[in-house]
Amino acid sequence: MSGPKFTMAAMNDEERDALRRLLREVRVAHLGTLRDGAPMVSMTLFLPAADLSQFHVHVSRLAWHTQDMGRDPRVALSIAQNDDARADPFTLARVTLRGSASPLANDGPAFGTLKQSWLARYPESAINFTLADFSFWAIRPHSARFIAGFGRIHNLSAQALAGVAA
Amino acid sequence: MSGPKFTMAAMNDEERDALRRLLREVRVAHLGTLRDGAPMVSMTLFLPAADLSQFHVHVSRLAWHTQDMGRDPRVALSIAQNDDARADPFTLARVTLRGSASPLANDGPAFGTLKQSWLARYPESAINFTLADFSFWAIRPHSARFIAGFGRIHNLSAQALAGVAA
Repeated sequence: MSGPKFTMAAMNDEERDALRRLLREVRVAHLGTLRDGAPMVSMTLFLPAADLSQFHVHVSRLAWHTQDMGRDPRVALSIAQNDDARADPFTLARVTLRGSASPLANDGPAFGTLKQSWLARYPESAINFTLADFSFWAIRPHSARFIAGFGRIHNLSAQALAGVAA
Repeated sequence: MSGPKFTMAAMNDEERDALRRLLREVRVAHLGTLRDGAPMVSMTLFLPAADLSQFHVHVSRLAWHTQDMGRDPRVALSIAQNDDARADPFTLARVTLRGSASPLANDGPAFGTLKQSWLARYPESAINFTLADFSFWAIRPHSARFIAGFGRIHNLSAQALAGVAA
Protein backbone atom coordinates (compact mmCIF):
# COMPACT_ATOMS: atom_id res chain seq x y z
CA MET A 1 0.00 0.00 0.00
CA SER A 2 1.31 3.41 -0.94
CA GLY A 3 2.13 6.34 1.30
CA PRO A 4 0.93 9.89 0.91
CA LYS A 5 2.36 10.34 -2.58
CA PHE A 6 -0.10 11.02 -5.40
CA THR A 7 -0.33 8.18 -7.88
CA MET A 8 -2.75 9.62 -10.43
CA ALA A 9 -0.43 8.58 -13.22
CA ALA A 10 -0.87 4.97 -12.23
CA MET A 11 -4.65 4.92 -12.65
CA ASN A 12 -5.61 3.05 -15.77
CA ASP A 13 -8.73 3.75 -17.86
CA GLU A 14 -10.72 1.07 -16.12
CA GLU A 15 -9.92 2.57 -12.71
CA ARG A 16 -10.77 6.08 -13.86
CA ASP A 17 -14.13 4.80 -15.10
CA ALA A 18 -14.73 2.99 -11.83
CA LEU A 19 -13.94 6.14 -9.82
CA ARG A 20 -16.21 8.26 -12.02
CA ARG A 21 -19.05 5.78 -11.58
CA LEU A 22 -18.56 5.70 -7.81
CA LEU A 23 -18.77 9.47 -7.57
CA ARG A 24 -21.61 9.94 -10.05
CA GLU A 25 -23.83 6.89 -9.59
CA VAL A 26 -23.69 5.87 -5.94
CA ARG A 27 -26.46 7.65 -3.99
CA VAL A 28 -25.30 7.11 -0.45
CA ALA A 29 -22.17 8.40 1.31
CA HIS A 30 -20.91 8.19 4.87
CA LEU A 31 -19.99 11.59 6.23
CA GLY A 32 -17.26 11.81 8.83
CA THR A 33 -17.30 14.75 11.23
CA LEU A 34 -15.79 15.61 14.58
CA ARG A 35 -18.13 15.38 17.56
CA ASP A 36 -16.71 16.32 20.95
CA GLY A 37 -13.30 15.83 19.33
CA ALA A 38 -14.09 12.20 18.46
CA PRO A 39 -15.03 10.60 15.13
CA MET A 40 -18.69 10.63 14.09
CA VAL A 41 -19.91 9.07 10.84
CA SER A 42 -23.43 9.21 9.46
CA MET A 43 -25.10 8.21 6.22
CA THR A 44 -26.11 10.99 3.90
CA LEU A 45 -27.22 11.54 0.32
CA PHE A 46 -24.94 13.62 -1.87
CA LEU A 47 -24.66 15.28 -5.25
CA PRO A 48 -21.34 15.77 -7.06
CA ALA A 49 -20.67 18.94 -9.05
CA ALA A 50 -20.08 18.18 -12.73
CA ASP A 51 -16.38 19.03 -12.38
CA LEU A 52 -16.02 17.00 -9.14
CA SER A 53 -14.66 20.07 -7.33
CA GLN A 54 -17.51 20.06 -4.81
CA PHE A 55 -19.91 17.55 -3.34
CA HIS A 56 -23.20 18.83 -1.98
CA VAL A 57 -25.29 17.53 0.87
CA HIS A 58 -28.76 18.77 1.86
CA VAL A 59 -29.05 18.56 5.60
CA SER A 60 -31.11 19.69 8.57
CA ARG A 61 -29.49 22.01 11.07
CA LEU A 62 -31.01 19.71 13.70
CA ALA A 63 -28.90 16.77 12.50
CA TRP A 64 -25.73 15.92 14.38
CA HIS A 65 -23.51 16.09 11.30
CA THR A 66 -24.73 19.61 10.54
CA GLN A 67 -24.04 20.74 14.09
CA ASP A 68 -20.60 19.12 13.83
CA MET A 69 -19.76 20.84 10.52
CA GLY A 70 -20.81 24.17 12.01
CA ARG A 71 -18.27 23.73 14.79
CA ASP A 72 -15.42 22.30 12.69
CA PRO A 73 -15.53 22.32 8.87
CA ARG A 74 -13.16 19.38 8.43
CA VAL A 75 -15.00 16.36 7.00
CA ALA A 76 -14.49 13.11 5.15
CA LEU A 77 -16.93 11.52 2.72
CA SER A 78 -16.69 7.77 2.17
CA ILE A 79 -18.41 6.32 -0.88
CA ALA A 80 -18.46 2.61 -1.69
CA GLN A 81 -19.78 0.57 -4.53
CA ASN A 82 -23.11 -0.96 -3.57
CA ASP A 83 -22.68 -4.45 -2.09
CA ASP A 84 -23.76 -6.72 -4.95
CA ALA A 85 -23.48 -9.90 -2.89
CA ARG A 86 -20.19 -10.87 -4.57
CA ALA A 87 -18.14 -13.61 -2.92
CA ASP A 88 -15.54 -11.12 -1.65
CA PRO A 89 -16.91 -7.73 -0.54
CA PHE A 90 -13.32 -6.65 0.23
CA THR A 91 -12.97 -6.06 -3.54
CA LEU A 92 -15.72 -3.42 -3.64
CA ALA A 93 -14.38 -0.16 -5.04
CA ARG A 94 -14.47 2.75 -2.63
CA VAL A 95 -13.19 6.28 -2.29
CA THR A 96 -12.73 8.70 0.57
CA LEU A 97 -12.80 12.44 -0.03
CA ARG A 98 -11.24 14.63 2.64
CA GLY A 99 -11.87 18.35 2.74
CA SER A 100 -13.90 21.10 4.30
CA ALA A 101 -17.59 21.90 4.40
CA SER A 102 -19.30 25.26 4.19
CA PRO A 103 -23.00 26.16 4.30
CA LEU A 104 -24.82 27.67 1.34
CA ALA A 105 -27.61 30.17 1.95
CA ASN A 106 -31.10 29.19 0.82
CA ASP A 107 -31.35 32.62 -0.85
CA GLY A 108 -27.84 32.43 -2.35
CA PRO A 109 -26.94 32.42 -6.06
CA ALA A 110 -26.26 28.67 -6.31
CA PHE A 111 -29.45 27.54 -4.60
CA GLY A 112 -31.89 27.40 -7.52
CA THR A 113 -29.73 25.31 -9.84
CA LEU A 114 -28.65 23.08 -7.01
CA LYS A 115 -32.21 22.45 -5.86
CA GLN A 116 -33.18 21.51 -9.42
CA SER A 117 -30.28 19.07 -9.72
CA TRP A 118 -30.96 17.63 -6.28
CA LEU A 119 -34.62 17.02 -7.07
CA ALA A 120 -33.74 15.44 -10.42
CA ARG A 121 -31.65 12.92 -8.49
CA TYR A 122 -33.78 12.66 -5.33
CA PRO A 123 -37.36 13.56 -6.31
CA GLU A 124 -38.77 12.15 -3.07
CA SER A 125 -36.77 14.75 -1.11
CA ALA A 126 -39.03 17.59 -2.24
CA ILE A 127 -40.61 17.80 1.21
CA ASN A 128 -37.27 18.75 2.75
CA PHE A 129 -37.30 21.97 0.73
CA THR A 130 -40.46 23.01 2.55
CA LEU A 131 -38.69 22.75 5.91
CA ALA A 132 -36.86 25.83 7.21
CA ASP A 133 -34.12 23.82 8.89
CA PHE A 134 -32.72 22.26 5.67
CA SER A 135 -29.95 23.80 3.60
CA PHE A 136 -27.14 22.80 1.26
CA TRP A 137 -23.54 22.47 2.35
CA ALA A 138 -20.66 22.28 -0.11
CA ILE A 139 -17.83 19.89 0.63
CA ARG A 140 -14.61 20.79 -1.19
CA PRO A 141 -12.16 17.91 -1.17
CA HIS A 142 -8.47 18.71 -0.83
CA SER A 143 -7.57 15.10 -1.53
CA ALA A 144 -9.03 11.70 -2.23
CA ARG A 145 -8.02 8.12 -1.52
CA PHE A 146 -9.40 5.66 -4.04
CA ILE A 147 -9.27 1.93 -3.47
CA ALA A 148 -10.06 0.33 -6.77
CA GLY A 149 -10.09 -3.14 -5.23
CA PHE A 150 -7.42 -5.85 -5.02
CA GLY A 151 -5.08 -3.53 -3.08
CA ARG A 152 -4.95 -0.96 -5.88
CA ILE A 153 -4.74 2.29 -3.93
CA HIS A 154 -4.50 5.77 -5.41
CA ASN A 155 -4.01 8.97 -3.47
CA LEU A 156 -5.29 11.88 -5.52
CA SER A 157 -5.06 15.63 -5.19
CA ALA A 158 -8.18 17.72 -5.81
CA GLN A 159 -6.75 18.53 -9.24
CA ALA A 160 -6.26 14.86 -10.09
CA LEU A 161 -9.81 14.15 -8.91
CA ALA A 162 -11.17 16.86 -11.20
CA GLY A 163 -9.24 15.23 -14.03
CA VAL A 164 -11.51 12.21 -13.71
CA ALA A 165 -14.59 14.33 -14.48
CA ALA A 166 -13.90 14.63 -18.19
CA MET B 1 -34.98 14.87 16.10
CA SER B 2 -34.15 13.90 19.61
CA GLY B 3 -31.30 15.10 21.77
CA PRO B 4 -28.81 12.99 23.64
CA LYS B 5 -31.43 11.20 25.71
CA PHE B 6 -31.75 7.45 25.25
CA THR B 7 -35.03 6.42 23.67
CA MET B 8 -34.72 2.62 23.75
CA ALA B 9 -38.20 2.38 25.21
CA ALA B 10 -39.59 3.96 22.08
CA MET B 11 -38.23 1.32 19.67
CA ASN B 12 -41.00 -0.90 18.47
CA ASP B 13 -40.55 -4.55 17.46
CA GLU B 14 -40.19 -3.68 13.80
CA GLU B 15 -37.41 -1.23 14.57
CA ARG B 16 -35.60 -3.69 16.82
CA ASP B 17 -35.74 -6.26 14.00
CA ALA B 18 -34.45 -3.71 11.52
CA LEU B 19 -31.55 -2.78 13.80
CA ARG B 20 -30.68 -6.44 14.39
CA ARG B 21 -30.68 -7.09 10.64
CA LEU B 22 -28.47 -4.06 9.99
CA LEU B 23 -25.89 -5.22 12.51
CA ARG B 24 -25.99 -8.91 11.59
CA GLU B 25 -26.59 -8.99 7.83
CA VAL B 26 -24.89 -5.94 6.30
CA ARG B 27 -21.31 -6.83 5.31
CA VAL B 28 -19.84 -3.39 4.82
CA ALA B 29 -19.28 -0.61 7.35
CA HIS B 30 -17.63 2.79 7.16
CA LEU B 31 -15.05 3.25 9.88
CA GLY B 32 -14.41 6.75 11.18
CA THR B 33 -11.02 7.50 12.69
CA LEU B 34 -8.96 10.57 13.48
CA ARG B 35 -6.13 11.35 11.07
CA ASP B 36 -3.96 14.37 11.85
CA GLY B 37 -6.83 15.45 14.11
CA ALA B 38 -9.29 15.49 11.20
CA PRO B 39 -12.04 13.02 10.24
CA MET B 40 -11.08 10.01 8.13
CA VAL B 41 -13.63 7.42 7.01
CA SER B 42 -12.92 4.21 5.14
CA MET B 43 -14.91 1.17 4.11
CA THR B 44 -14.26 -2.01 6.02
CA LEU B 45 -15.77 -5.44 6.55
CA PHE B 46 -16.90 -6.26 10.07
CA LEU B 47 -18.21 -9.05 12.27
CA PRO B 48 -20.54 -8.45 15.22
CA ALA B 49 -20.18 -10.46 18.43
CA ALA B 50 -23.30 -12.50 19.16
CA ASP B 51 -24.18 -10.24 22.10
CA LEU B 52 -23.46 -7.04 20.09
CA SER B 53 -20.99 -5.88 22.73
CA GLN B 54 -18.09 -5.84 20.26
CA PHE B 55 -17.62 -5.46 16.54
CA HIS B 56 -14.51 -6.92 14.97
CA VAL B 57 -12.54 -5.76 11.98
CA HIS B 58 -9.61 -7.60 10.38
CA VAL B 59 -7.18 -5.01 9.13
CA SER B 60 -3.64 -4.53 7.88
CA ARG B 61 -1.28 -2.45 9.98
CA LEU B 62 -0.32 -0.77 6.71
CA ALA B 63 -3.86 0.60 6.25
CA TRP B 64 -4.53 4.19 7.26
CA HIS B 65 -7.42 3.29 9.59
CA THR B 66 -5.19 0.85 11.49
CA GLN B 67 -2.48 3.48 11.90
CA ASP B 68 -5.16 5.92 13.05
CA MET B 69 -6.63 3.53 15.64
CA GLY B 70 -3.13 2.88 16.97
CA ARG B 71 -2.71 6.60 17.64
CA ASP B 72 -6.22 7.30 18.99
CA PRO B 73 -8.64 4.49 19.85
CA ARG B 74 -11.79 6.57 19.39
CA VAL B 75 -13.78 5.38 16.38
CA ALA B 76 -17.22 5.39 14.82
CA LEU B 77 -18.73 2.65 12.67
CA SER B 78 -21.51 3.60 10.27
CA ILE B 79 -23.64 0.80 8.84
CA ALA B 80 -26.43 1.37 6.35
CA GLN B 81 -28.99 -0.84 4.71
CA ASN B 82 -27.84 -1.70 1.20
CA ASP B 83 -29.23 0.74 -1.38
CA ASP B 84 -32.01 -1.26 -3.02
CA ALA B 85 -32.77 1.41 -5.62
CA ARG B 86 -35.90 2.54 -3.76
CA ALA B 87 -37.42 5.87 -4.77
CA ASP B 88 -36.19 7.60 -1.62
CA PRO B 89 -32.77 6.48 -0.34
CA PHE B 90 -33.17 8.88 2.58
CA THR B 91 -35.42 6.22 4.15
CA LEU B 92 -32.65 3.59 4.27
CA ALA B 93 -32.13 2.38 7.83
CA ARG B 94 -28.70 3.14 9.29
CA VAL B 95 -26.88 3.04 12.57
CA THR B 96 -23.71 4.60 13.92
CA LEU B 97 -21.76 2.94 16.70
CA ARG B 98 -19.33 5.12 18.65
CA GLY B 99 -16.70 3.62 20.87
CA SER B 100 -13.10 2.61 21.14
CA ALA B 101 -10.92 0.14 19.29
CA SER B 102 -8.22 -2.15 20.64
CA PRO B 103 -5.97 -4.64 18.85
CA LEU B 104 -6.18 -8.38 19.47
CA ALA B 105 -3.01 -10.46 19.29
CA ASN B 106 -2.83 -13.13 16.60
CA ASP B 107 -1.70 -15.56 19.30
CA GLY B 108 -4.32 -14.40 21.81
CA PRO B 109 -7.14 -16.51 23.29
CA ALA B 110 -9.91 -15.06 21.11
CA PHE B 111 -8.11 -15.46 17.78
CA GLY B 112 -9.03 -19.01 16.80
CA THR B 113 -12.78 -18.68 17.29
CA LEU B 114 -12.79 -15.26 15.70
CA LYS B 115 -10.88 -16.44 12.64
CA GLN B 116 -13.34 -19.29 12.21
CA SER B 117 -16.32 -16.93 12.42
CA TRP B 118 -14.66 -14.42 10.11
CA LEU B 119 -13.97 -17.06 7.46
CA ALA B 120 -17.51 -18.41 7.72
CA ARG B 121 -18.72 -14.95 6.81
CA TYR B 122 -15.90 -13.90 4.46
CA PRO B 123 -14.40 -17.11 3.02
CA GLU B 124 -12.54 -15.20 0.30
CA SER B 125 -10.53 -13.39 2.99
CA ALA B 126 -8.52 -16.52 3.83
CA ILE B 127 -5.45 -15.09 2.11
CA ASN B 128 -5.31 -12.21 4.60
CA PHE B 129 -4.63 -14.70 7.38
CA THR B 130 -1.41 -15.70 5.63
CA LEU B 131 -0.15 -12.09 5.77
CA ALA B 132 1.80 -11.02 8.85
CA ASP B 133 0.44 -7.46 8.79
CA PHE B 134 -3.23 -8.42 9.38
CA SER B 135 -4.85 -8.67 12.79
CA PHE B 136 -8.21 -8.30 14.48
CA TRP B 137 -9.30 -5.19 16.31
CA ALA B 138 -12.28 -5.12 18.66
CA ILE B 139 -14.52 -2.07 18.61
CA ARG B 140 -16.55 -1.70 21.79
CA PRO B 141 -19.41 0.77 21.33
CA HIS B 142 -20.30 3.04 24.22
CA SER B 143 -23.39 4.25 22.38
CA ALA B 144 -25.31 3.94 19.15
CA ARG B 145 -27.49 6.21 17.08
CA PHE B 146 -30.06 4.33 15.01
CA ILE B 147 -32.05 6.02 12.29
CA ALA B 148 -34.85 3.65 11.42
CA GLY B 149 -35.95 5.85 8.54
CA PHE B 150 -38.65 8.50 8.29
CA GLY B 151 -37.01 10.62 11.00
CA ARG B 152 -37.29 7.87 13.61
CA ILE B 153 -34.10 8.37 15.61
CA HIS B 154 -33.03 6.34 18.62
CA ASN B 155 -30.00 7.03 20.78
CA LEU B 156 -28.98 3.82 22.52
CA SER B 157 -26.56 3.00 25.28
CA ALA B 158 -24.29 -0.04 24.89
CA GLN B 159 -26.66 -1.85 27.25
CA ALA B 160 -29.68 -1.00 25.15
CA LEU B 161 -27.81 -2.12 22.04
CA ALA B 162 -27.04 -5.47 23.66
CA GLY B 163 -30.73 -5.78 24.43
CA VAL B 164 -31.39 -6.00 20.70
CA ALA B 165 -29.23 -9.13 20.38
CA ALA B 166 -31.75 -11.44 21.99
